[in-house]
Amino acid sequence: MTTIDQGITTGSGVDTVVADDRAHVFHSWSAQDKISPLPVAGGEGSRFWDYEGKTYLDFSSQLVNLNLGYQHPALVAAIQEQAARLCMVQPAFANDVRGEAARLIAERAPGELNHVFFTNGGAEANENAIRMARLHTGRHKVLSTYRSYHGATAGAIALTGDPRRWPSEPSIPGSVHFWGPYAYRSAFHATSEAEEGARALQHLADTIMVEGPSTIAAIILETVVGTNGILVPPPGYLAGVRELCDRHGIVLIADEVMAGFGRCGEWFAIDHWGVVPDLITFAKGVNSGYVPLGGVVISESIFDTFRERAYPGGLTYSGHPLACAAAVASIKVMSDGVLDHVKEMGRDVIAPRLAELAARHPSVGEVRGLGMFWAVELVRDRATREPLVPFNAAGPDAEPMARFTAACKERGLWPFVHFNRTHVAPPCTTTREELLEGLDILDQALDVADEYYTGS
Amino acid sequence: MTTIDQGITTGSGVDTVVADDRAHVFHSWSAQDKISPLPVAGGEGSRFWDYEGKTYLDFSSQLVNLNLGYQHPALVAAIQEQAARLCMVQPAFANDVRGEAARLIAERAPGELNHVFFTNGGAEANENAIRMARLHTGRHKVLSTYRSYHGATAGAIALTGDPRRWPSEPSIPGSVHFWGPYAYRSAFHATSEAEEGARALQHLADTIMVEGPSTIAAIILETVVGTNGILVPPPGYLAGVRELCDRHGIVLIADEVMAGFGRCGEWFAIDHWGVVPDLITFAKGVNSGYVPLGGVVISESIFDTFRERAYPGGLTYSGHPLACAAAVASIKVMSDGVLDHVKEMGRDVIAPRLAELAARHPSVGEVRGLGMFWAVELVRDRATREPLVPFNAAGPDAEPMARFTAACKERGLWPFVHFNRTHVAPPCTTTREELLEGLDILDQALDVADEYYTGS
Ligand SMILES: Cc1ncc(COP(=O)(O)O)c(C=O)c1O
Ligand SMILES: Cc1ncc(COP(=O)(O)O)c(C=O)c1O
Repeated sequence: MTTIDQGITTGSGVDTVVADDRAHVFHSWSAQDKISPLPVAGGEGSRFWDYEGKTYLDFSSQLVNLNLGYQHPALVAAIQEQAARLCMVQPAFANDVRGEAARLIAERAPGELNHVFFTNGGAEANENAIRMARLHTGRHKVLSTYRSYHGATAGAIALTGDPRRWPSEPSIPGSVHFWGPYAYRSAFHATSEAEEGARALQHLADTIMVEGPSTIAAIILETVVGTNGILVPPPGYLAGVRELCDRHGIVLIADEVMAGFGRCGEWFAIDHWGVVPDLITFAKGVNSGYVPLGGVVISESIFDTFRERAYPGGLTYSGHPLACAAAVASIKVMSDGVLDHVKEMGRDVIAPRLAELAARHPSVGEVRGLGMFWAVELVRDRATREPLVPFNAAGPDAEPMARFTAACKERGLWPFVHFNRTHVAPPCTTTREELLEGLDILDQALDVADEYYTGS
Repeated sequence: MTTIDQGITTGSGVDTVVADDRAHVFHSWSAQDKISPLPVAGGEGSRFWDYEGKTYLDFSSQLVNLNLGYQHPALVAAIQEQAARLCMVQPAFANDVRGEAARLIAERAPGELNHVFFTNGGAEANENAIRMARLHTGRHKVLSTYRSYHGATAGAIALTGDPRRWPSEPSIPGSVHFWGPYAYRSAFHATSEAEEGARALQHLADTIMVEGPSTIAAIILETVVGTNGILVPPPGYLAGVRELCDRHGIVLIADEVMAGFGRCGEWFAIDHWGVVPDLITFAKGVNSGYVPLGGVVISESIFDTFRERAYPGGLTYSGHPLACAAAVASIKVMSDGVLDHVKEMGRDVIAPRLAELAARHPSVGEVRGLGMFWAVELVRDRATREPLVPFNAAGPDAEPMARFTAACKERGLWPFVHFNRTHVAPPCTTTREELLEGLDILDQALDVADEYYTGS
């Protein structure tokens, strides 16, 4: 735990914050009587703090959105200046910062993805991407993977391949799930990365065959699967998916809501593999979530579909000037060395240090990732790979992970924990020293996980 | 046309604005090659201006969201201050402005609607409202009206009862449409407001009967239908719907995204009729759209459902501090006389002046509304009520309305035009003088509509 002297709001008002929250704020994904949300007073850089002056190093970047960290001065200034100029212009007008943000994004997008449709967040981005794909192809089905998250509106949750989908079913028709590559828990009995990639492609080709290529509008993939495990695609997998899409006239949508904008050390994670999708959906890192913003980057070919024919979708705040001003500032900051920093820290600090932890802690089944986007997967037994807690565990079943989480927080690290994994996803501006500090805390907290190890 | 000296950005940069927009911004609800979006340089109060210094009095409040007008100093300051304090905290934490915004909203909501789930906009609010209703009731169907708009994500567009739904079908299962009251074009052959209200209720009761009460989770209504015609419910209608919902255990959702937060002269339009719904969805006016924000206000009874059982929905930016800070400021400003101003202007200025226009211009079939929310419905023939342009007209068919719109813009008024109607929905802070100025322009532009009149 570090104490930041400057700017901490201590004590005063915390009772009101808690009282208002408990009486009036309805929290997402929660049983309202079973939570006690931590009141956050402020943040700076890679850390935030509560009202007692306790600071946390944030290895979750809030919800993996704070790619430039807390209160980046350039972003704060851009928001303040835009607020003074013009807060809101509706989507039917042309607006300077909206156009600039669109241009900066298009310039960074691969291939001929030159047009940007702005939304407020990731779910709406995916909703609009599948609408575009359906109208462009005249087909209806959308294929997505198990172990994925695409958002919580009716369309986005239908695509989602994790348990968050279950309570919202039946949702939109035409959503089909297939298995993506995940070598550590192969759905295809593969014994190597290369085999996993090849077999996952075969599985997808077979799924397309039996679903009927002429019925499939789109395949949507998280380029690097985020919340469901930082699943980095094996070499050749994305190129193979691209090839299948080309062969069958299927739109390839890369969901880069979590993986994009620096997280993986590239503007778009897919650049890592040199593959060009037809649509990219983004949010979070585009402006670190300082103002809600998401969107779809659109290929020339799909754009052509909507030149003479109206695109039937929209939202009041599409291309919100305040959000776009934050995006412009963010892209400029990121253009100034942040991507290189992410690559370097991933390669030189996180990867080797996590490898050490894996060597030392029996409960670490696998570490994997790239850039500032890593997973530490915890198991009870390295031989059987039995997860430290069961899939979708809650309550007492989840105790090992709950204790691990508490051990991190006690020591001043805010971890990103999902199922039997902890992710390392700090702000992309986190320094080497801060990373080492956080990784040391992980090291200590992993002793708790080791207590549950039953393997030999 | 008025020219504002101060603060106008003229000329400089407009070429870039247009170039960036045309090259990179994908516009909602449009054929991309058929539009030429007006570049907006700034705004203040009830007016905005382009890069040539031409100002427009805004009778559309952008997309009927700018309830406190352009660049209200209190809102701008609140955003700037919050930006300096803390831009973003994820939904799982407690945050001071988030809690304060929730409390201020809950205090103003009718009955025991004490809890607020925040979203980024109106579509997401409705998505979450129907999710809550379904889980609360264990039923699946959602009834909504024709001639309604509820947003453009898969769930919200399925509820929508206007042509914007068509290209997104089939959407979520379980969406059923019925006819709401609209005395001027009665679906029930009614000849008075009272008869319309009674027959519309009978129609709804019959629809519930044949759909099966035990299958119906919710009825969602725009309290006052907005874009589809400013359809003010006849006295007794909403109370009757409430009664039907109570009888059958159906959740009543009031979509107040457009009608709420001052637009109708009340905090929530439904207060006008003293009816308490189970859920209210809001967006737009809650903070004038200065930062994207929407949400659901939740009754104690529905809240109880999610005390011990997790609510399975969420979004990264739920309860965004910057958006909530703008809401807090906005509610404080609105609490200081704005609602009374809206009521007074509606009653004393807009209503009598529109009645005069109706008397003078044969093409005005009906004027209706309340507060600062009015429709002028244009017809070719008062006897047959044939609309000035056909339902959902586009291209040459829509020419009369296109010419009417152009006549308004030429004279410095930005109208809200939909199908065969123009709406009067200026910022709630618009002064008497400005209203009279705008209504005078409408008067002149209606001469164009009169040219198409074929009745006697
Ligand atoms: C990969 C991915 N897609 C979509 C979403 C949904 O974004 P939002 O929460 O902004 O709707 C998320 C959010 O975590 C995500 O990680
Ligand atoms: C009544 C109503 N509900 C919902 C919406 C959708 O809101 P949003 O555009 O913020 O998604 C609108 C938008 O115009 C609306 O008028």
